[in-house]
Amino acid sequence: MSEFYQLGVCYYPEHWPQSQWADDAADMAARGISKVRIGEFAWSRIEPARGNFQWDRLDGAIETLSAAGLKIILGTPTATPPKWLMDEYDDILAVDKDGRPRRFGSRRHYCFSSKSYVRESGRITRAVAERYGKHPALYAWQTDNEYGCHDTSRSWSPMAQAAFRLWLREKYKTVDALNTAWGGVFWSMEFQNFDQIDLPNLTVTEPNPSHVLDFYRFSSDQVIKFNRVQCDIIRARSDAPISHNFMGYYGEFDHFKLSQDLDIATWDSYPLGFLDIGPTGDFERSHYMRQGHPDFAGFHHDLYRGCKSRWWVMEQQPGPVNWADHNPAPIDGMVKTWSLEAFAHGAEGVSWFRYRQAPFAQEQFHAGLKRVDNAASQGGIEAAQTAAILETLPEAETQNAKTALVFSYEALWMSEIQPQGKARNFWRRMTDWYGAARKAGLDVDIISETKDFAGYDIVMIADLPIISPDFIDRLKQSKAQFIFGPGCGGKTKDFHIPPNLVPGNLQDVLALKVIKTETLRAGVATPGGGHIWQDYVETDLPAQFDGALFSDANIHYFTTVPGEALLQKAFAKICKTAGVETTVLPDGVRVRRRGDLTFVFNYNPHAVTLPDSLIGAMRFRSGQPELAPGETAVLTAQD
Amino acid sequence: MSEFYQLGVCYYPEHWPQSQWADDAADMAARGISKVRIGEFAWSRIEPARGNFQWDRLDGAIETLSAAGLKIILGTPTATPPKWLMDEYDDILAVDKDGRPRRFGSRRHYCFSSKSYVRESGRITRAVAERYGKHPALYAWQTDNEYGCHDTSRSWSPMAQAAFRLWLREKYKTVDALNTAWGGVFWSMEFQNFDQIDLPNLTVTEPNPSHVLDFYRFSSDQVIKFNRVQCDIIRARSDAPISHNFMGYYGEFDHFKLSQDLDIATWDSYPLGFLDIGPTGDFERSHYMRQGHPDFAGFHHDLYRGCKSRWWVMEQQPGPVNWADHNPAPIDGMVKTWSLEAFAHGAEGVSWFRYRQAPFAQEQFHAGLKRVDNAASQGGIEAAQTAAILETLPEAETQNAKTALVFSYEALWMSEIQPQGKARNFWRRMTDWYGAARKAGLDVDIISETKDFAGYDIVMIADLPIISPDFIDRLKQSKAQFIFGPGCGGKTKDFHIPPNLVPGNLQDVLALKVIKTETLRAGVATPGGGHIWQDYVETDLPAQFDGALFSDANIHYFTTVPGEALLQKAFAKICKTAGVETTVLPDGVRVRRRGDLTFVFNYNPHAVTLPDSLIGAMRFRSGQPELAPGETAVLTAQD
Amino acid sequence: MSEFYQLGVCYYPEHWPQSQWADDAADMAARGISKVRIGEFAWSRIEPARGNFQWDRLDGAIETLSAAGLKIILGTPTATPPKWLMDEYDDILAVDKDGRPRRFGSRRHYCFSSKSYVRESGRITRAVAERYGKHPALYAWQTDNEYGCHDTSRSWSPMAQAAFRLWLREKYKTVDALNTAWGGVFWSMEFQNFDQIDLPNLTVTEPNPSHVLDFYRFSSDQVIKFNRVQCDIIRARSDAPISHNFMGYYGEFDHFKLSQDLDIATWDSYPLGFLDIGPTGDFERSHYMRQGHPDFAGFHHDLYRGCKSRWWVMEQQPGPVNWADHNPAPIDGMVKTWSLEAFAHGAEGVSWFRYRQAPFAQEQFHAGLKRVDNAASQGGIEAAQTAAILETLPEAETQNAKTALVFSYEALWMSEIQPQGKARNFWRRMTDWYGAARKAGLDVDIISETKDFAGYDIVMIADLPIISPDFIDRLKQSKAQFIFGPGCGGKTKDFHIPPNLVPGNLQDVLALKVIKTETLRAGVATPGGGHIWQDYVETDLPAQFDGALFSDANIHYFTTVPGEALLQKAFAKICKTAGVETTVLPDGVRVRRRGDLTFVFNYNPHAVTLPDSLIGAMRFRSGQPELAPGETAVLTAQD
Repeated sequence: MSEFYQLGVCYYPEHWPQSQWADDAADMAARGISKVRIGEFAWSRIEPARGNFQWDRLDGAIETLSAAGLKIILGTPTATPPKWLMDEYDDILAVDKDGRPRRFGSRRHYCFSSKSYVRESGRITRAVAERYGKHPALYAWQTDNEYGCHDTSRSWSPMAQAAFRLWLREKYKTVDALNTAWGGVFWSMEFQNFDQIDLPNLTVTEPNPSHVLDFYRFSSDQVIKFNRVQCDIIRARSDAPISHNFMGYYGEFDHFKLSQDLDIATWDSYPLGFLDIGPTGDFERSHYMRQGHPDFAGFHHDLYRGCKSRWWVMEQQPGPVNWADHNPAPIDGMVKTWSLEAFAHGAEGVSWFRYRQAPFAQEQFHAGLKRVDNAASQGGIEAAQTAAILETLPEAETQNAKTALVFSYEALWMSEIQPQGKARNFWRRMTDWYGAARKAGLDVDIISETKDFAGYDIVMIADLPIISPDFIDRLKQSKAQFIFGPGCGGKTKDFHIPPNLVPGNLQDVLALKVIKTETLRAGVATPGGGHIWQDYVETDLPAQFDGALFSDANIHYFTTVPGEALLQKAFAKICKTAGVETTVLPDGVRVRRRGDLTFVFNYNPHAVTLPDSLIGAMRFRSGQPELAPGETAVLTAQD
Repeated sequence: MSEFYQLGVCYYPEHWPQSQWADDAADMAARGISKVRIGEFAWSRIEPARGNFQWDRLDGAIETLSAAGLKIILGTPTATPPKWLMDEYDDILAVDKDGRPRRFGSRRHYCFSSKSYVRESGRITRAVAERYGKHPALYAWQTDNEYGCHDTSRSWSPMAQAAFRLWLREKYKTVDALNTAWGGVFWSMEFQNFDQIDLPNLTVTEPNPSHVLDFYRFSSDQVIKFNRVQCDIIRARSDAPISHNFMGYYGEFDHFKLSQDLDIATWDSYPLGFLDIGPTGDFERSHYMRQGHPDFAGFHHDLYRGCKSRWWVMEQQPGPVNWADHNPAPIDGMVKTWSLEAFAHGAEGVSWFRYRQAPFAQEQFHAGLKRVDNAASQGGIEAAQTAAILETLPEAETQNAKTALVFSYEALWMSEIQPQGKARNFWRRMTDWYGAARKAGLDVDIISETKDFAGYDIVMIADLPIISPDFIDRLKQSKAQFIFGPGCGGKTKDFHIPPNLVPGNLQDVLALKVIKTETLRAGVATPGGGHIWQDYVETDLPAQFDGALFSDANIHYFTTVPGEALLQKAFAKICKTAGVETTVLPDGVRVRRRGDLTFVFNYNPHAVTLPDSLIGAMRFRSGQPELAPGETAVLTAQD
Repeated sequence: MSEFYQLGVCYYPEHWPQSQWADDAADMAARGISKVRIGEFAWSRIEPARGNFQWDRLDGAIETLSAAGLKIILGTPTATPPKWLMDEYDDILAVDKDGRPRRFGSRRHYCFSSKSYVRESGRITRAVAERYGKHPALYAWQTDNEYGCHDTSRSWSPMAQAAFRLWLREKYKTVDALNTAWGGVFWSMEFQNFDQIDLPNLTVTEPNPSHVLDFYRFSSDQVIKFNRVQCDIIRARSDAPISHNFMGYYGEFDHFKLSQDLDIATWDSYPLGFLDIGPTGDFERSHYMRQGHPDFAGFHHDLYRGCKSRWWVMEQQPGPVNWADHNPAPIDGMVKTWSLEAFAHGAEGVSWFRYRQAPFAQEQFHAGLKRVDNAASQGGIEAAQTAAILETLPEAETQNAKTALVFSYEALWMSEIQPQGKARNFWRRMTDWYGAARKAGLDVDIISETKDFAGYDIVMIADLPIISPDFIDRLKQSKAQFIFGPGCGGKTKDFHIPPNLVPGNLQDVLALKVIKTETLRAGVATPGGGHIWQDYVETDLPAQFDGALFSDANIHYFTTVPGEALLQKAFAKICKTAGVETTVLPDGVRVRRRGDLTFVFNYNPHAVTLPDSLIGAMRFRSGQPELAPGETAVLTAQD
């Protein structure tokens, strides 16, 4: 069992008879698993009535698991407050945008702005931390579970309204400052005092975008604040590191900021579920039906690695799931490949969700490593295979990439608040640009817009409306090639158009001004091979790709959303300028390096022959040049 | 006028001046009609204010109609409580899933769980039954009208919540039993007492499927209970048989169970309306635009015949209707063919809806036998033609078929509660399998999952998640070929996956285990010619049709939802095994036998020549081998 | 600067520093602008707290603008009541159809039936009228802004319910009369008194269509009444003419009736926004992406000219907008062409929206004549070009056309209340028929169904369910060719089918009766080249175009919704009968005459050569035979 590349599994002792725990633990260990996540939905068993704590079961489970050599990742059970607690209060439920309470009966039935719930979730966290904070089997903590899942970051409740008013008061000090920042004069939307300000829902037509942006910022802050309460309580009682599990294609709170309170960022990787419901083209949705999009997992690995250098996949899809519109089964080998890919991108650990498939309740079609009849599933078999491969690999440190993609949660919110064209899609733009670099064989870091650019040869900024003076300062200190998408720099921090027009502050380093912008239906092409968006510019810079791109020294600006071919061509050209060597990978193949190791993944449903140019002088530690569907090769330097 | 094959019409005396009634009655009789359904929406005229009963109009109408030799089918007017009654109570209106009261202003504005309304509907039923229960012109009763129409079976009201808690208490006795049955431990969804249990709506994400299934079972029971109150009141005052009119593609209550309280099951047959909005493919929707799907009416005839041996079509579409998204006119002959087809399937009677087209209110585009200007419509002309043909036919008893299709209302609910794939469609699966037998020239019985299999050569079980030990016992006592769809036996009665996996109890007689299931987008084919769903199996049985089908003696299991070609091929093969003789019918042609009579229907918009193999030694009583579009032939044995 | 063809611009002094006003005013004048619309969203600045009137800014703005020679169009600020006022009352907000209040935070947050708001809007109107009613710089008034925008004409509030009951009482006098008119007997929907009548929303299934139609009529009357209050207050204090700005494709109140209280009708013309979201085919949506549909502006010009002989375009699109799903930029020349086209159709003035693009709040992507950085936009450049052309043109009076299209707001409501087929589209039918005449080179008047037909050669009635005896009288007095669409005359004033069937009273002059009607899915063709709708008729008249058209002397009736080719052929044939000379225009080209001037517009994205047959003996005052994309030619008689 590799101590360096750690494997885990999510387990629910409360779902199974105590008599089964020891066998389960032994089987986990036999599959190379060393960590078990437990506890995150168990409140009704830990505290079946107020103050009536029943620790026996959890004590026993930890005992049994640790006796098999397993360490515990312990979740606070705050994603599922029990019914008796809900009935004590009338101010816990969140409210949806239509004004309806979101009721008990599934999970995440709380509003982040509920003072009652902040207090209660603190109380149970304290109880759990006090009992297990110093337990020798404890490996790490997880706060709550999947903040924001099921659209729960934003609540339109009276509690949220009260908290939002306080947040605004703190931010703006005077209501006049707020009126100016929001441009309330536009439609007589001016306020005389903070207590007049409602949440921006159920308005006659679209609300003020600055009002909405502040509400989204506030909502993000509330999630962070909620999480911090738990972190503080735990840290006062335990030295174990604290984690939280993020999700795919989800950005309603600022994960960079929340991660500052964590020791380990983790995320839940479901490549098939997200292919089905995510921002993907029709060809990809069909071709990668049972493998997932080749950039889905990598993108999120790099995003959450950007949030925290210590990171895990806390839930790894082990087979078909239950929650997408359609739920295909992964091809054989794919669960192993997904798991190895996380390590290739620098993960400290990978934990499969879940150990045994649950035969009841909402997720009964969700595969586990074990089937309902306790036989190993295909995922269970591949878990052991993954462990076997990892044992053969040397420890390898994760290095920074030379190519960066800037990711901004505020940019996401702004793209949704005022998209200007229905075809605009923030996630698609992010993954397309990320994919352009990955298809060229490059490793990519995904970084916050506040990060230093030192060490990068290429920085991609696909969608960033607010470009601060500080950003420009950091850019000037860098020698990297900066590639901007259309509309970048197009807004001030208050969500106004800058006085000097788009691209705003970027004009310090780019002699170009956007004097008109249009948006287009899907399917309408722009000159040079773009779509969706067209900036008309005033500039003396020479037009490239029929005006789709302008470059001012190391600053490049797309006037349109580049289609795949244009993006690939332009990216290759800029790499050449930057002296960055690229490879043309076979379609559906991705490469990722960790220390001396080079991982190659075949996401195709057919075998591919890896080109010599890719293999070069490396030797195969695992896999072979003829890479089977869904397979992984691991290579290292020849000597 | 045939006394054996009865014809009726729905009539609203309150819509027309009294002076017109006698002429209308005479015209009905002249068209061969002997029964008239009246009264079902007339409450505001019968009792214009509380206790102020005005019987004169209804007395007079019955008098006039019976003077023309017509018998009365009398409806209780409980589908349309009048405004004065609604205003007396605040606990009658149903509540929709979003929590909004469903208000007065159309019809069916009541909650089945309203105690006030149960009392009031009993009161008016008693008054009507007392006045007309022994009337010599009375032929039969109809309770209410189209229970469940406009999504009214399920109500999310406080009254429903209170009644649901009582229902659960009665079912489970202890809340611990309920917690176990529902698997509430999954997300801390456990209860301490029954009064904590809400209706499963407005939850943050999908509610517990066992919770929902019990709510659907409860809602079905409430409809049945509501109906029983009226039946009991009527039976205490009248010897006339009691009927209710069911609908097409509707299953939110268990029609088998409700029918136990009826003497006659009836249904409302609108082949064009349901082609437009029903589960039909694009080709069929276009090809059968003005005829209806060839299996629509037959399927429902056989379903409701399965509910009750005495059955009618209570509302037969007589021309274009008003309520579908698009409303084409039937081709000439089609109204006659639809009417004859009901008799072919064993109907006791067919009643057209309605006598004269209403010039006002919601349904003014709905054709009648008479136009608004009192001329006969095409439907009216064909009504008389239908009567003329029926008079020439001998009395023929309806025999059971040798092929059965199992239909389970619980299965329908489960397929909707946890479909696992969006493309899953219960009604489509039912009608496709039904159609496979009908295209092979076979008559089909549709039976409840609790029915004995004696007498059947082939039993089709297209979708039945819960397969009880009792079902297996009955299966073992039968020599029939049993054909199961994928996922059958996949759930316990509590909506869990069985400990021995899918197909659960069926593994007693089928040496096969499903170890993985995937669902697929529409348009993705599975091996052998299926789609939508793929079970991966562990078995030593030989794979047929590329693994789409496995057979263990007389037990056959599809691992995928078979497409039309696969289904037809596999069905033919199994028929051969069973020694059942099949015919290849021309596309769009259906055959149905009643006693010695063989009916042949051409649903095509073009003529077809009936093959000699079909006609054999029979002679034509009606029609001819060159069957015109929309026409019916009736044949009997040569001698 | 032309005094005859007036140019204006919408301006918001409150959005800009006072120091900028004088430069702005000078620039407007330099571009040929003589009128400025101000004030319509400025309530929070005029009266920042109750009774605290701050006139300085508005005084100053008017001062500065008039010093530059500009005249003022002054808006009452009632579309945007400020927050302090909303907080004083709980009976101002409208309620949506789902029962939710439509809250403060954007604009138009009031219910037309709120007595409190009628009083408050009167109060602010009085204050503004008293201050500026006699101001020498005042040119005209505008009441409120875009009545009905964002679906605000109809409110489902308690205030609306109370007012509706009074309206019904006044209309019907007795509740029995209402019951008869609505056919309430149908489903026991009868009332005992007016206080029982709810608004027709949240019913179990569709409400009574007569109930809905009366609610729509009432809602229209409430808008008219609300506007009249302001008109009366203003007229008592000012001699300046009163206008209101209507919208595109909007008809929830009767604009003919409301215009009786106005002196000038105006409308807001956004050809690109409405191409994107309007009732347009795919080819047009793509081909005219950056020009707008060639009949969009013309249709509305003629519709609002039909409302009032004095009319303006009050908001002319000056570049890309922000509010459509996709927002392309007009091709160069198009802003000028749109502006000239308004004058061609008889406009007194054209006012661009807006002077300078707003960098904040909801509409920051909406272009102005000036960019955010105060440079002229393409629209600003074309504004000056427009002015230059207008200066060269002689004054020309607008004459009536010889071809009329009847437009009925009630017909629109009825087509939506009971469409009978989903593919039915009132606006599409109107614009298609209008376009048929315009493609044939004809000028068209759009007239109310109550208008005299004197002077017309051809009258088109594409969709008019209610044909009154008075309409028939006027028709009989005319020699025009009358062309009716299918279903015309199909309803009585109470929304019943007429006793003599469709086309009702029209049968006085047309020997044809519709005995059956069907509706069809989009894509299904009817004989002769129609779609959507098919009337089956009883008639001795000869069938034309495979029965798609029947003619009885000068009365023509389509039995189907004619497709483009059929419509064009039939229209040409009828023109020939009428002795009306038509021209075959190149695709995408339209012609319009004003006095001696003939305007020719090229809506294509490519140049066209105008045919000699069109130019004839005229000479070019502007433009040339080879007409560039988006360009206008102006011709007059040679001598």
